[in-house]
Amino acid sequence: MRLRNVKGANEIIEKSKYIIKDYNKYKGKFKKIFQNDNEIHLEIGMGKGDFITKMALKNPNVNFIGIEKFDSVMVRAVQKLEDKQINNLKLIKTDALELDEIFDNEISCIYLNFSDPWPKERHSKRRLTSEIFLKKYDKILKTKKIIMKTDNRKLFEYSIISFTNYGYKIEELSLNLYDDNTEENVQTEYENKFVKQGKTIYKITVQK
Amino acid sequence: MRLRNVKGANEIIEKSKYIIKDYNKYKGKFKKIFQNDNEIHLEIGMGKGDFITKMALKNPNVNFIGIEKFDSVMVRAVQKLEDKQINNLKLIKTDALELDEIFDNEISCIYLNFSDPWPKERHSKRRLTSEIFLKKYDKILKTKKIIMKTDNRKLFEYSIISFTNYGYKIEELSLNLYDDNTEENVQTEYENKFVKQGKTIYKITVQK
Repeated sequence: MRLRNVKGANEIIEKSKYIIKDYNKYKGKFKKIFQNDNEIHLEIGMGKGDFITKMALKNPNVNFIGIEKFDSVMVRAVQKLEDKQINNLKLIKTDALELDEIFDNEISCIYLNFSDPWPKERHSKRRLTSEIFLKKYDKILKTKKIIMKTDNRKLFEYSIISFTNYGYKIEELSLNLYDDNTEENVQTEYENKFVKQGKTIYKITVQK
Repeated sequence: MRLRNVKGANEIIEKSKYIIKDYNKYKGKFKKIFQNDNEIHLEIGMGKGDFITKMALKNPNVNFIGIEKFDSVMVRAVQKLEDKQINNLKLIKTDALELDEIFDNEISCIYLNFSDPWPKERHSKRRLTSEIFLKKYDKILKTKKIIMKTDNRKLFEYSIISFTNYGYKIEELSLNLYDDNTEENVQTEYENKFVKQGKTIYKITVQK
């Protein structure tokens, strides 16, 4: 997600109590940050943070880390969070390509919400469900579980094939989430907008 | 598919030159019927036969066998075919449960078009993509390839999971066939009707 530049975004982010700046120190030891043994769940591309914030509030016995590479988006999440005190939520500003240098076998679930579809075939490796990324996830995941939502049909078709070719089993699949029971569903900002536009939302949970 | 009874349907079917009546004699030897070594493709639940007839005309170097269990439907296919001379098409009136008693390792592709969704969970084993049927297909398929189309979302979700859990790889997947290129697509009667109603058509090709 790209937004126009936000003046001083970098400074605002750096000062936030939610941001883990010295994340390089914690590889394999992220539970130290939360000071408990609870599971750590990761959202890749957390955008303005609505999903991960709601998830953290809803699941106090799970720790959540959100990553986002764009300052201009992350700063919105940080600003919304600043007056709250949520102890089971932390954020890292980084690129998903760096994930396996940051974490080691310590994440219990990855959320991919409305990721960039990279529609051109020649960019397919950049999709967060390409084999390149699945290999990285293997290194950071303790429990191999990924939950994905998207409105992009082509990305979803690609991802179903990519997950299953890679050895993941499909635990749950919805080709029209909002025609199913969505009581338990936690919306992202994008999702809220897309649902109002009448778009079909797809969801898959895979495990291996 | 059920239609009201057609008077004398059974007699009309029995007399048709397309029907293989003594199919029990040909297990493992169906190519004798076609008198060539071409691949044999099978449609399970051919209904009124539009799809398999068009496929046979379009692909003269492939042999097609359609099976259907309901007299009242099959008689329509037979009536439409009677004045045509299509040498690479045969029909068998039988139940899909009997498939592995009829064929042996000699089918190269199975088509499942708009199969009964059996929506109730307690009937899930009756779905033509349940493990029970996948095991039967294993016995009759020489090349393990299945091509499925449906308008039923729940059946399609179930089938994607069933295929991949069973070890099939997804070769092609469309979650909205008519938004993709359908130049090569051969319609069934149901499909024609559903598309006009604006329904989403799903298609998957799996292989192992």
